[in-house]
Amino acid sequence: VELSPEECFELLSGHTVGRFVYVNDAGPAAVPVNYAVGDGDVVFRSEDGAKIEALSGAIVAFEVDHIDEADHSGWSVLIRGSAELIDLERVPEVIRRLETAVPGPWKSGIHNRWVRISPIAVTGRRLDAFAVDVLF
Amino acid sequence: VELSPEECFELLSGHTVGRFVYVNDAGPAAVPVNYAVGDGDVVFRSEDGAKIEALSGAIVAFEVDHIDEADHSGWSVLIRGSAELIDLERVPEVIRRLETAVPGPWKSGIHNRWVRISPIAVTGRRLDAFAVDVLF
Repeated sequence: VELSPEECFELLSGHTVGRFVYVNDAGPAAVPVNYAVGDGDVVFRSEDGAKIEALSGAIVAFEVDHIDEADHSGWSVLIRGSAELIDLERVPEVIRRLETAVPGPWKSGIHNRWVRISPIAVTGRRLDAFAVDVLF
Repeated sequence: VELSPEECFELLSGHTVGRFVYVNDAGPAAVPVNYAVGDGDVVFRSEDGAKIEALSGAIVAFEVDHIDEADHSGWSVLIRGSAELIDLERVPEVIRRLETAVPGPWKSGIHNRWVRISPIAVTGRRLDAFAVDVLF
C-alpha cells in the first residue's frame, strides 16, 4: 500500500531515528541518526563537518521504517532530496527549535553541524506480513 | 565503539530485517528487506527483477541497526559490496537454504529473484546514549 506524502510526514514526525543515505568514494552508504522534521525538511546533527561539507548540495536520501521482525508488518518512508549545512550563526532561532526537537545532549564546537535535507520526492509504503519480504 | 567484522556478522546473523542501499537515476536510496547471512554474504529476495538486474555488479550497501529510541543506545552495521543475482536454476541447494533462512512465504515466478551482496568492507559501531545523536 503506497502512502501519501502527508502520511509519510506524519509517520516521520512520530519517530526520532532514521538513516541518512549518501554516496561517497566507496559507494552508497547509510547511517542511523537522530532527526527531526521541521518546515517540511528533515534535519539532523553531525559530528563530522568535513564529511558533511563534501555532501553539501548533493542528492541524498533519508529512510525511516518501523518493521516488526516477528510478524513482518510495518511501514517505510524514503525521502530523496538535497543536503545542505544549516548556518546556525545566521539563524539562532533554528538552534532553539532543533535543541527541542532532536533528542540528545547539546555539544559545542565541531559536533554542532546541522544538516537539512530538502525533499524532492517522498515515498512510503505500508507493509503487511506478506509484502515485507519482497519489498524491494 | 568500533565493532570487528566478526562482531558485525554475529549481529547480522541475529536479525532478519535490514536495508538495501543502492543508487539509481534518482540518486541514493534505501529500502527495508528481509535478509539472511550465508557463507559471508548477505542474501535477500526481490520482487522486481528488472530493478535488480540494473544493479547487478554495482557497488551497493546493506545496513542493519538496532537502536532504542527511548535511551538512544544500540548498534549499527554497514556492509559495502557488489550485488549480483543468484542463478537459482544452477544452485537448487541455495533455494532450500534460503527458504529456511529468510522468513516469509515462498512465491513462484517473477518474485523469486534472489540477490547476493558480497562484502568488500564491513564496519559497525556500538552506540551509547551519548553517541547515537552524533553518529554520522
